[in-house]
Amino acid sequence: MYSFKNDYSEGAHERILNALVESNFEQTDGYGEDYHTERAVQILKDKIDNQNVDIHLLVGGTQVNLTAISAFLRPHQAAIGADTSHINCHETGAIEATGHKVITMKTDDGKLTPSLIQKVVDAHQDEHMVQPKLVYISDSTELGTLYTKAELTDLHNCCKKNKLLLYLDGARLGAALTAEKNDLTLADIAKLVDAFYIGGTKNGALFGEALVICKDELKEDFRYFIKQKGGLLAKGRLLGIQFEELFKDDLYFELAKYANNLAIILKNALIEKGYKFLCESYTNQQFPILPNEVVKKISEKYSFNVERVIDENNTVIRLVTSWATSKEKVLEFVEELNL
Amino acid sequence: MYSFKNDYSEGAHERILNALVESNFEQTDGYGEDYHTERAVQILKDKIDNQNVDIHLLVGGTQVNLTAISAFLRPHQAAIGADTSHINCHETGAIEATGHKVITMKTDDGKLTPSLIQKVVDAHQDEHMVQPKLVYISDSTELGTLYTKAELTDLHNCCKKNKLLLYLDGARLGAALTAEKNDLTLADIAKLVDAFYIGGTKNGALFGEALVICKDELKEDFRYFIKQKGGLLAKGRLLGIQFEELFKDDLYFELAKYANNLAIILKNALIEKGYKFLCESYTNQQFPILPNEVVKKISEKYSFNVERVIDENNTVIRLVTSWATSKEKVLEFVEELNL
Amino acid sequence: MYSFKNDYSEGAHERILNALVESNFEQTDGYGEDYHTERAVQILKDKIDNQNVDIHLLVGGTQVNLTAISAFLRPHQAAIGADTSHINCHETGAIEATGHKVITMKTDDGKLTPSLIQKVVDAHQDEHMVQPKLVYISDSTELGTLYTKAELTDLHNCCKKNKLLLYLDGARLGAALTAEKNDLTLADIAKLVDAFYIGGTKNGALFGEALVICKDELKEDFRYFIKQKGGLLAKGRLLGIQFEELFKDDLYFELAKYANNLAIILKNALIEKGYKFLCESYTNQQFPILPNEVVKKISEKYSFNVERVIDENNTVIRLVTSWATSKEKVLEFVEELNL
Amino acid sequence: MYSFKNDYSEGAHERILNALVESNFEQTDGYGEDYHTERAVQILKDKIDNQNVDIHLLVGGTQVNLTAISAFLRPHQAAIGADTSHINCHETGAIEATGHKVITMKTDDGKLTPSLIQKVVDAHQDEHMVQPKLVYISDSTELGTLYTKAELTDLHNCCKKNKLLLYLDGARLGAALTAEKNDLTLADIAKLVDAFYIGGTKNGALFGEALVICKDELKEDFRYFIKQKGGLLAKGRLLGIQFEELFKDDLYFELAKYANNLAIILKNALIEKGYKFLCESYTNQQFPILPNEVVKKISEKYSFNVERVIDENNTVIRLVTSWATSKEKVLEFVEELNL
Repeated sequence: MYSFKNDYSEGAHERILNALVESNFEQTDGYGEDYHTERAVQILKDKIDNQNVDIHLLVGGTQVNLTAISAFLRPHQAAIGADTSHINCHETGAIEATGHKVITMKTDDGKLTPSLIQKVVDAHQDEHMVQPKLVYISDSTELGTLYTKAELTDLHNCCKKNKLLLYLDGARLGAALTAEKNDLTLADIAKLVDAFYIGGTKNGALFGEALVICKDELKEDFRYFIKQKGGLLAKGRLLGIQFEELFKDDLYFELAKYANNLAIILKNALIEKGYKFLCESYTNQQFPILPNEVVKKISEKYSFNVERVIDENNTVIRLVTSWATSKEKVLEFVEELNL
Repeated sequence: MYSFKNDYSEGAHERILNALVESNFEQTDGYGEDYHTERAVQILKDKIDNQNVDIHLLVGGTQVNLTAISAFLRPHQAAIGADTSHINCHETGAIEATGHKVITMKTDDGKLTPSLIQKVVDAHQDEHMVQPKLVYISDSTELGTLYTKAELTDLHNCCKKNKLLLYLDGARLGAALTAEKNDLTLADIAKLVDAFYIGGTKNGALFGEALVICKDELKEDFRYFIKQKGGLLAKGRLLGIQFEELFKDDLYFELAKYANNLAIILKNALIEKGYKFLCESYTNQQFPILPNEVVKKISEKYSFNVERVIDENNTVIRLVTSWATSKEKVLEFVEELNL
Repeated sequence: MYSFKNDYSEGAHERILNALVESNFEQTDGYGEDYHTERAVQILKDKIDNQNVDIHLLVGGTQVNLTAISAFLRPHQAAIGADTSHINCHETGAIEATGHKVITMKTDDGKLTPSLIQKVVDAHQDEHMVQPKLVYISDSTELGTLYTKAELTDLHNCCKKNKLLLYLDGARLGAALTAEKNDLTLADIAKLVDAFYIGGTKNGALFGEALVICKDELKEDFRYFIKQKGGLLAKGRLLGIQFEELFKDDLYFELAKYANNLAIILKNALIEKGYKFLCESYTNQQFPILPNEVVKKISEKYSFNVERVIDENNTVIRLVTSWATSKEKVLEFVEELNL
Repeated sequence: MYSFKNDYSEGAHERILNALVESNFEQTDGYGEDYHTERAVQILKDKIDNQNVDIHLLVGGTQVNLTAISAFLRPHQAAIGADTSHINCHETGAIEATGHKVITMKTDDGKLTPSLIQKVVDAHQDEHMVQPKLVYISDSTELGTLYTKAELTDLHNCCKKNKLLLYLDGARLGAALTAEKNDLTLADIAKLVDAFYIGGTKNGALFGEALVICKDELKEDFRYFIKQKGGLLAKGRLLGIQFEELFKDDLYFELAKYANNLAIILKNALIEKGYKFLCESYTNQQFPILPNEVVKKISEKYSFNVERVIDENNTVIRLVTSWATSKEKVLEFVEELNL
């Protein structure tokens, strides 16, 4: 049984493991006050081409989302997200647990638009309702789709006009930035959003997400929030070492590109067989709509998640590739499909 | 400069690193639903000699404390702790951030007693005050001291009588259980408290704490709380692998014993020089009271934390040893002291 | 300008004012431990025909909702409500501020059904999502509609099957219970739901809502929650005196019936003019769909709220009557409509 | 049995009741957007001699404290209070329930000093601890004592120096401002603190506290917080009418002065008998230390609260007078004492 279930099924890229082994007996200060973290942060600032951002390394994505969003909002303020957004669906109410409503809008492709945001703002105008304050988007989205530079610029302008914060969840930012149709860079993103994070867990690290705070007003005292929410790793160096390794050259992008390429092989094979998709993805998550008998057949050799039941006969499944996915297994899958 | 600052200055014991490397390309399910975690949990249940406990592996201590305590308490209930307790002093209000007061009592040695607890209970008798419900203790304590089996039994009885939960923070449980004056076992603890955790971070792991829930009523739905608080590690296997390695034989106890032994060397040397201590510790944290000129002198070659200023001329410092501390450096320190 | 804006525009029924004046110099204990409150609670238990319920008197509806729901749920649990439900729309995220998600379902008439609830339950099956636990309904609803005994029984059964709590917001319970199509009694409701409240503010009191807790497991320590959320009125007698007066005979029901009757006069006049309604209401809130020029015309003499813009030419307004509404003004409104 | 238990045992001053009766059938907008509230706010601004403050009328003191403090603080920030402070002792953890620690300092007289505050600030210097941000004081204090203008100025300066907010709980501000040794005015307070409230419940109103926000940065969106915490009274006019009546002339001060005078009669009689007091109070709360047999004897005819057991033979009781206390009963009490 080979797994296309997700992009965190294996450990870490060997360069990361090597770096951990090599640095193992260095004595460093705890809680991210070590030189590996310092170096990783500097490398990231250079890659982002912005020395003015604040960067914090945390262990996981839900942790970053709940820490950042609860730090950025005042008690009466709410986040706006797509109904498919991770904070709405798969974080066990983590944002609400910090006291904030998540207002959701229905979308076909997991992407928010200025017009959807404006509707929310227009419907919340007095103190009997929460005050929408932060727009949460993901790139790539939970459905594998992408924001273009033009779209992100429009969101930026919409947020600016309405005094909203724009926050980008980059759990799969590597997949987004290396996708065929992408035209965004890290530097663009840092200019267009108020905060975002660069996901390591799903792209070759053992764990780790780099939160980038662009807007000055959001920076103050941020380490307090990390500590309070239980996210300040004692051996913070482990985060530093991993991001150093991922970004000191282009390893991060190479790993993501590799995953995307394998996903596109799967996608093309499925297209050739005439299958449709839930929405168009150029990244490492593909959501084909398959007849149930096909789903059953491939489930004999491969594991994956069911996304949604479409009707009696058809099901949307999710196929995910990663830096660790075997190309051989992908080709084998394609072959099986054609039998 | 050699550091006696804490027990999380280095990476991990090499057996742990090796285990991570060896298992690296296994595909496993995420979020702790992998066979390494399953095995680690089984090994721990055997060591604890209790198949009925629930065990969850989390990344860090503050995370365990806030997740467990907020899961165990209803909104109007409070924790009781020593004024030096970690949840009171060094977790940035993490417990209060989940809505619960921490009621503190002054102690000399960081240890709660039935009489201190009873005072709190007696002073909180109606709905205009919080309801004390959970007693938080640490073993070894934040001051390096220990609970004896008799003392823990008394606390257990006091809690039972007052319908209080007894929770033990075992960030340094290895140090406690392998200390000279200790007479407790993991099995004893599991019988006497309602929940406790076995700390990995400060005893040879990269990170990781094993929460053991003994009381049935506290077990339900616990994974929801871990996820909601951002503590459900995507690659949960990393926790499983580490605890497997630490407990499949006696590595965990050997590492702790090693650290304690080095601390006792420091302690004895300091005693010989006539110095007194903040309180009597048999574990890997020692709190000598030193003349300021001695503090100054040793700070030239060694780093450590200042615990407290006693008076104009004397300061309490904290010296910490760990599985990774160099015996050579300890002996060198002793030698310097005698110059 | 005469107001049909809401049912809390005036003070209180004169019998309530008289009772306050008469009792003014009695010395009583504070915080609801007085004999007026005791008597009011006993009278309510008799009216509900259930001596086993717990009853607490609070000042306002949002206060009751947030206090009760946060007391009843554990941190990972969520409430389910109609998208039009008061807790979702008009309480500034009060429920989320206590840490709990409100899962909403779209409805036409503001009423939840077993099938809508089942959909939510089926979509929330693991610890990566919140756990739906409490069903929030209002009777009469925010759109003026009613639950029948059969419908409430179905909801009761659906909740029982899915281990959900059923909670009824009775801010306008008087209007519901005295409406033409109603077949529920206070005693029925106490049998079918786990907790509900009887609204005084919108039916003749200066303020005050009586929370009735039917399910034993929800009763423990409830006064702690009221105090913690700021809802324990120092002069709790004010609540006792008002509920005593409203329920010692049938004043509460008479006032509600009066308000409903006036609303039906408005409704019938609007029907006669050929106007349609957002949904069919037999209670004191009517939501006619009116041409904009009609809206404009009546707004010259009457104030009311706009509920929703339907299209370029038509608007839904809300007309509300109360115990204090002038019948003369209602007839005048009808007359104006016919000019 | 006559009660000296507290200052909220009776209803309201008759002028307040009359005002409620007279205005009863006026139609007003809800939620404090009525002209009575508008007028009351203007009258208060005039009395405070500051047109720039924001004033909000709420129902009760715990509600004001939790709403204001949680609105003013960011998640990692804490309040500092005396160990006897109301938010620490008698609000069921209301502040912690909003996520914030209350750091307490031991005092003899219920009063904080710059030196106590500085100690707290000095002990909280990094992100592993909460950040002290708001100083909570009461005037008169929970022990009946007063702040002088010099003392409040010192606190103001200490807070300014340490970037702390200064918040004054005025549940018994009337008693403070009309006490013999007082040299503060409403205008002074508004200049020296960042926010405070003027208590109505304990000085002649049915209920009601007027929160005065002096610092501009704390004003924004405040009505959202009131609504979210359940404190926005539907018939907000009730608050407006009461404060209008209390402050349109000097009724508020006359009532407080009357209560203080009666307390001083009690105090002097007790002094004459040779009894000592817990601390020196010039306000309507007196805390004499009495032999147990005296306590027993007076408890036959009078009810009061026991504050503290001093030793085997002596007890501190609390005697409270109010606007409604009978002078005759006070004199009778004095007479009994002398028998």
